[in-house]
Amino acid sequence: MSDILYEGKSKTICGGPDERTVVVRYKDTATAFDGKKKEDLAGKGRLNAEITRLLFGYLAQHGIKTHLLEVIDDTTELVRKAEIVMVEVIVRNAAAGGFSKKYGVPEGTALANAITEFSLKSDALGDPMINESQITALGIATTEELAFMTAQSLKINELLCALFGKAGIRLIDYKLEFGRCENADGVREILLCDELSPDSCRLWDAETDKKLDKDRFRRDLGDVLGGYREVLRRLQDVL
Amino acid sequence: MSDILYEGKSKTICGGPDERTVVVRYKDTATAFDGKKKEDLAGKGRLNAEITRLLFGYLAQHGIKTHLLEVIDDTTELVRKAEIVMVEVIVRNAAAGGFSKKYGVPEGTALANAITEFSLKSDALGDPMINESQITALGIATTEELAFMTAQSLKINELLCALFGKAGIRLIDYKLEFGRCENADGVREILLCDELSPDSCRLWDAETDKKLDKDRFRRDLGDVLGGYREVLRRLQDVL
Repeated sequence: MSDILYEGKSKTICGGPDERTVVVRYKDTATAFDGKKKEDLAGKGRLNAEITRLLFGYLAQHGIKTHLLEVIDDTTELVRKAEIVMVEVIVRNAAAGGFSKKYGVPEGTALANAITEFSLKSDALGDPMINESQITALGIATTEELAFMTAQSLKINELLCALFGKAGIRLIDYKLEFGRCENADGVREILLCDELSPDSCRLWDAETDKKLDKDRFRRDLGDVLGGYREVLRRLQDVL
Repeated sequence: MSDILYEGKSKTICGGPDERTVVVRYKDTATAFDGKKKEDLAGKGRLNAEITRLLFGYLAQHGIKTHLLEVIDDTTELVRKAEIVMVEVIVRNAAAGGFSKKYGVPEGTALANAITEFSLKSDALGDPMINESQITALGIATTEELAFMTAQSLKINELLCALFGKAGIRLIDYKLEFGRCENADGVREILLCDELSPDSCRLWDAETDKKLDKDRFRRDLGDVLGGYREVLRRLQDVL
């Protein structure tokens, strides 16, 4: 593997075999609260890589373009090199976490419609929520890019809700990242990037509301990876 | 005047002569930082009432429906009774205040486009920013109402920028409130409510960037009402 291009909190990005690709390696490190809480959970990287692979594969089959090219090994994948759009999309189907606190809505409350929020990718500023007119005013992305990302996120949400529903899991909320790149014909396109895993999603058992995601780590609920393994097992059953 | 219906930080609302109206009285009290800073500034109520009257009159002449019916005296006006939409619209033409801090953009930086933000009217929650999909998900307003309020705010912004430009004042940012009511024919409509004054706008001298608004009070810049009087004088000159 070539030089490290970027060392993230839970993933390492290295140069790929050619200029149009990079290699992503999932780490076992779990972090929360802007890195203030940190622990190594042996096997987390492998679980997140496998869950992302399953979900990105499922989405690709349903017409969502993702950056994933091929699996290299248990924790490593080859992806298309893309310029990450500096706003994440947060999608919510029920109130939880920061949203519940900010707007005074109890966790688990169903919402009249799926919510999409943008959040500025800036550790220094604490990833603040940002809206479309603010994003374009600051030159971070164009109106067209934001409209595409929002529409794509809602399409992804329908697909994921259907899938997790079959798996007996409530998809409470999650974040998506998108990247810009050129396809082989030189046409600019926007791809789904990063990961979709219990690190980036809130996933509750549909019957018991048991948390099967990173909130087990954030809130010291114990058996963190037991939740992740349960998510993987159920997805394997329905895919 | 009839019983007090609502005692706000800077205005008192009383019942009007009939069921479709209320009386608004502007107070001299200045508050900031969620009421933690508070002072009486003799004459502020009169200045804000007069500036609001001029601006609402100008907007009404240009097709914006407002709640203002008639002036009762220096600090008191008769307005249409409306059910206030529980989100304010903040309009920004340049970075300042909370926006500058939140997104790391120096005060006074021009923006590529006018920004409109919604903010939930909740002292208890600290008036957090909220987006369209969150507002509809929580049942606070409909998509159609939000689209109307946004379009109306951008129209108001064009009108106000033109007016303040003639008055040698930079309109940096401001907040707008809207209310729902029925017109005489029973048709539901949305009116511009509340006030437009140096309490609710950031107004800088176009030449010197001198602050002519409530930031003089928030930031202890002295001669608070000197700024307000300057705004009134210049508006009277151009209207």
